[in-house]
Amino acid sequence: MVGIKNIGVYIPEERISNLEKLEKFDTTEDFISNKIGIEKVSLKLPDEDVSEMCVKAFEHLNSKQTIEKQNIKACILITQNPESNIPHSSALLHDKLDLPQDCACFDISLGCSGYVYGLSVLKSFMQSNDISEALLFTCDPYSKIMDYEDKNTSLLFGDAATATHLVTENPNFDIEKFTFGTFGKESHNLTAGINGSKLAMNGRGIFNFVIRNIPKNIKKLCELNGINENDIDAFVFHQGSKFLIDTLVKRMKVDPNKMKFSAKDYGNTVSSSIPILLEELEIEKHKTIAISGFGVGLSWSSTILKVN
Amino acid sequence: MVGIKNIGVYIPEERISNLEKLEKFDTTEDFISNKIGIEKVSLKLPDEDVSEMCVKAFEHLNSKQTIEKQNIKACILITQNPESNIPHSSALLHDKLDLPQDCACFDISLGCSGYVYGLSVLKSFMQSNDISEALLFTCDPYSKIMDYEDKNTSLLFGDAATATHLVTENPNFDIEKFTFGTFGKESHNLTAGINGSKLAMNGRGIFNFVIRNIPKNIKKLCELNGINENDIDAFVFHQGSKFLIDTLVKRMKVDPNKMKFSAKDYGNTVSSSIPILLEELEIEKHKTIAISGFGVGLSWSSTILKVN
Repeated sequence: MVGIKNIGVYIPEERISNLEKLEKFDTTEDFISNKIGIEKVSLKLPDEDVSEMCVKAFEHLNSKQTIEKQNIKACILITQNPESNIPHSSALLHDKLDLPQDCACFDISLGCSGYVYGLSVLKSFMQSNDISEALLFTCDPYSKIMDYEDKNTSLLFGDAATATHLVTENPNFDIEKFTFGTFGKESHNLTAGINGSKLAMNGRGIFNFVIRNIPKNIKKLCELNGINENDIDAFVFHQGSKFLIDTLVKRMKVDPNKMKFSAKDYGNTVSSSIPILLEELEIEKHKTIAISGFGVGLSWSSTILKVN
Repeated sequence: MVGIKNIGVYIPEERISNLEKLEKFDTTEDFISNKIGIEKVSLKLPDEDVSEMCVKAFEHLNSKQTIEKQNIKACILITQNPESNIPHSSALLHDKLDLPQDCACFDISLGCSGYVYGLSVLKSFMQSNDISEALLFTCDPYSKIMDYEDKNTSLLFGDAATATHLVTENPNFDIEKFTFGTFGKESHNLTAGINGSKLAMNGRGIFNFVIRNIPKNIKKLCELNGINENDIDAFVFHQGSKFLIDTLVKRMKVDPNKMKFSAKDYGNTVSSSIPILLEELEIEKHKTIAISGFGVGLSWSSTILKVN
């Protein structure tokens, strides 16, 4: 059974303070700290790109338990802001990490739902191809496509990368069944790179979509996995904004201690938000964790992690 | 068991003639017709982009056997030239095809090896998530990134899209075990989109890599699948150039009737080359087919298809 062994995280040290932008964006400290909940966004170094950031996340992972690189037979990188169109950034990462030649590498283009999809794709791929160790990376540096004059996006998104080690033997988390969804008709709510365009977001459209769909998606997830929603002791959800998480807590009638917003000091890191939170989790305090990613596409995916 | 039902193909009607470029590129008809083997390259309409081209491939697929769209629960699109960074082009396609909301959609960034990887990813994903019908698209319109003054690339690459219907019940081809590989250190041989750069290729580097690696990869594939190389009655390989296929025929000591170059009238269509050939195959004449994709990354993947 494929599961998660460890997670490595890289959040760049550099920060942009949102509290210094109150006047520029005609906003208030209350809005920044209590509504969007993001006081600073993380910013990669100017000369850093996706593969370097993933290497730093890998180094953190490797500091927890040495990865035997020759055993890694698959490496997936989730990004919509790769270093180039051609080649895929996972090939550059393959070079930098000196992974073996019989390692399958590819990028998956997904946003905030990408980590959960990536877990399913990599778990399936490992099972089907008899692979015992693999790596899943996330890295979507929105600073590359940010319009820093745009209040809707520049106060929200931070840069980060994560590296997750998937194994068949002695994982710390088992990965249960998944739900998936796409609503392409609403994809215009978050766009970038159309003839070189910067990031543009209709936050209201995405917010409404999430509030309408994710609570019922989690009910479906529980049915699929034969568990009761009350059995879930942590809801590790994509960190869109504090207001989004607060609203989901209310709509789903969840104990707020079970579903937290923790991105105050670095922002919404797209596909890295869920693994960053998982890595921070005190796993000995948990048994059954629901993870859910939602956003760009619009796209969503959820699963249950069982702590071993 | 997941297998291939049918394949739909869209090759745009518009062609650029390579034989009209002999003087421009100081080359000969013999070089065009007998060495690279590509007399014309296909060219998409100026206002056509990835999702429209995929819709046309889907329409061809649908003309063979009506696809019940509400049954499609996964849709993967292989491209390195998507319509935008955000959203992924498969979300746009989800909208255009009116696929159901519980359909998982994502893009995979891979080049000439992408179709074979895509088959493995989608087969695994279907098995693991109990999905009985899904679609795999390929579309990589290199005309978007082409430098038409570059002899190395502009005589080679054509535009196309394909749509493959994967099913668990009564497939026409069973999909056997796969081999995969990546050699990131040689990824500089084919690049595009680095700070907006056009396509650039070191053809010699890729050629040498393919000739050194693919023949031994096919031996490994036969071992993995417990078959003899002589049992393979068709080698449907990525159509890099006629010279590449001719050289593989010699090195692998294969009957030339079993491994053909058929891209004379449209060119190297990247991840679409293998499904275009598979679609043309008279399947009643075959039992055991080896498919192999190789290129960008550098990356390769092979598998065996068994005709039912």
